[in-house]
Amino acid sequence: MARPTLASLAAELGVSRQTISNVLNAPQRVKPATLDRVRAAIEAAGYRPSAAARQLRTRRSMNLGMRLMPVTDGINGSILDRFLHALTESAQGAGYRLTLFCADSHEDEVLQYGELLHVAGIDGFILTSSSRDDVRTKWLQDNGTPFAVFGRPWEDASAQHPWVDIDGAAGTGEAVSILAGQGHTRIAFLGWKDGGSVGDDRQSGWERAMGALGFSEDGSGLCTSATDTVTGGISGGRELIERGATAIVCASDSLAIGAAEILRELRPEQFLPGRPAGPGLRAAVVGFDDTPVAAALGLSSVAQPVEDAARHIVRLLTFELADRRGEGSAPEQHVLLAPHVVERVPLPLAAPH
Amino acid sequence: MARPTLASLAAELGVSRQTISNVLNAPQRVKPATLDRVRAAIEAAGYRPSAAARQLRTRRSMNLGMRLMPVTDGINGSILDRFLHALTESAQGAGYRLTLFCADSHEDEVLQYGELLHVAGIDGFILTSSSRDDVRTKWLQDNGTPFAVFGRPWEDASAQHPWVDIDGAAGTGEAVSILAGQGHTRIAFLGWKDGGSVGDDRQSGWERAMGALGFSEDGSGLCTSATDTVTGGISGGRELIERGATAIVCASDSLAIGAAEILRELRPEQFLPGRPAGPGLRAAVVGFDDTPVAAALGLSSVAQPVEDAARHIVRLLTFELADRRGEGSAPEQHVLLAPHVVERVPLPLAAPH
Repeated sequence: MARPTLASLAAELGVSRQTISNVLNAPQRVKPATLDRVRAAIEAAGYRPSAAARQLRTRRSMNLGMRLMPVTDGINGSILDRFLHALTESAQGAGYRLTLFCADSHEDEVLQYGELLHVAGIDGFILTSSSRDDVRTKWLQDNGTPFAVFGRPWEDASAQHPWVDIDGAAGTGEAVSILAGQGHTRIAFLGWKDGGSVGDDRQSGWERAMGALGFSEDGSGLCTSATDTVTGGISGGRELIERGATAIVCASDSLAIGAAEILRELRPEQFLPGRPAGPGLRAAVVGFDDTPVAAALGLSSVAQPVEDAARHIVRLLTFELADRRGEGSAPEQHVLLAPHVVERVPLPLAAPH
Repeated sequence: MARPTLASLAAELGVSRQTISNVLNAPQRVKPATLDRVRAAIEAAGYRPSAAARQLRTRRSMNLGMRLMPVTDGINGSILDRFLHALTESAQGAGYRLTLFCADSHEDEVLQYGELLHVAGIDGFILTSSSRDDVRTKWLQDNGTPFAVFGRPWEDASAQHPWVDIDGAAGTGEAVSILAGQGHTRIAFLGWKDGGSVGDDRQSGWERAMGALGFSEDGSGLCTSATDTVTGGISGGRELIERGATAIVCASDSLAIGAAEILRELRPEQFLPGRPAGPGLRAAVVGFDDTPVAAALGLSSVAQPVEDAARHIVRLLTFELADRRGEGSAPEQHVLLAPHVVERVPLPLAAPH
């Protein structure tokens, strides 16, 4: 994949790399004849026409900005890292690069937009971790800056900006269906304390699926919440098992790892005291995010199509940045993608011989 | 933390944001009087003097480039993500931003340098995953481009470029000392198949520490390798336990999770057949990278100071980019940082009541 580079182009034209750099960045310093010759060669050589040539025409920097959110526990955080990788690749495929910055809060992020736009020359922004009454989307809209959000505006029905999100409720609903198909009827939900909009959404999917299956009469005792850690999963899982749950849908893999730890410590006679689970029925846990840890431990988990989400976001933002009177029709402005459950069996451990 | 933004500066000076943008990016379009007034205000307001003002003086873009390596299994990969976060923060603290790009190989990375330097205006590069005979460092040196590497040049003694690395051998050596302090003498090493320079380094630390403790006579049977996965850890761990190991130092947390799975399945009478472990001696595993999974499962692990590494790399590269005749003395060009073992006990699971 030998792409022409500025160096190879300079060699071909018999000019210095500095001259080509000047053509692109400071054309007023280049003699008109040279300017025309180099510009023509750039277009003709197919030298990144999508990036360099468009940059010449539009004065865009071809640079998208995104705030890098702080590191979380790294278990559920791995989802944002997959997103970042997919975003960088999609942006590059569209001729853009991704520039990262840090901020302490949504408000601090807004304070940095001005400099990023005017000093760093960022063309548009990708936002993550959307919230209700998001100060960032308001600022960007008022300022006329192109942007796209990974995350819904939730109850802000007036929000018209482009966004892409993943339908968490559909994921927990599918988890309930799979567990019911295995014979479970006492399927619990272990959510986050203060789960916010995302947590509420995941819980609502479980509730609806339980209702649709006619299990809703059992619902009241089969839902609890815990801090989003493995130890939270242990305590929440124990509570739900004591209330008679035979299966647990969790809002995260951290919680699921803890709940699974409890299940593996239980001996058959301790499992469901007074409530036989029925022939062949095994206690089961489903996590959320399909993290590498879940894969390593053999835990089923709801997988989010973050790579698809990244591609959609780049498509939305680059359409916004391109000349919108072009031929292509506008992409769907609000995209809700469906996750799916990855089913696994716990690590098969042959007895040591 | 209300930083002045270009917007607030524009309001204060009674000029448009476009004017300020022109002062920074196209000064030839601004009237000389306005130019002087805005430049003075930028300097005086302390408006990011390290970034904006230096950008005016030096014509640098204040943009550092780094290739985002492909997603790995996500267990050991989390270390590179922590590095990325720390790098973005350190760069921002020094007035620089971090721009990401993707490449298929070291060779492809080199092919993109030209465009990144001349079209995107990248000032310098941060490289990861160094290898022997690295084509990238050669290209950058020949081209006179500033860069710094996270990773040693290994046996390439002629390499003079700035690098920062973490002393893996010191980490596995410390793991051996800790296990020996607990009473273990049959301490094994579980490495990677085709571990490369990094794998060899981690193994050499174990070897040296075992020799120093006088345990080297047992060494031959207490070292094996496996593919870098949890199932690899299970098979490798079983092999080492059958050879009489009571403790295992692993080249990664993926391997350690697998080895720990084997240990927890063993009943006391299966552990060390014919070789009593001695009173109070518990089988033990130490992983490498101190990943979130290790923390969640209560596994001891060697922690790499990646945040320190990121700060050193930014210091090396920004020194290279700044006027080197300034007053500050040059930072150490080759930095080897020591990791340390985070000791943990496996998750304390109270018996269900």
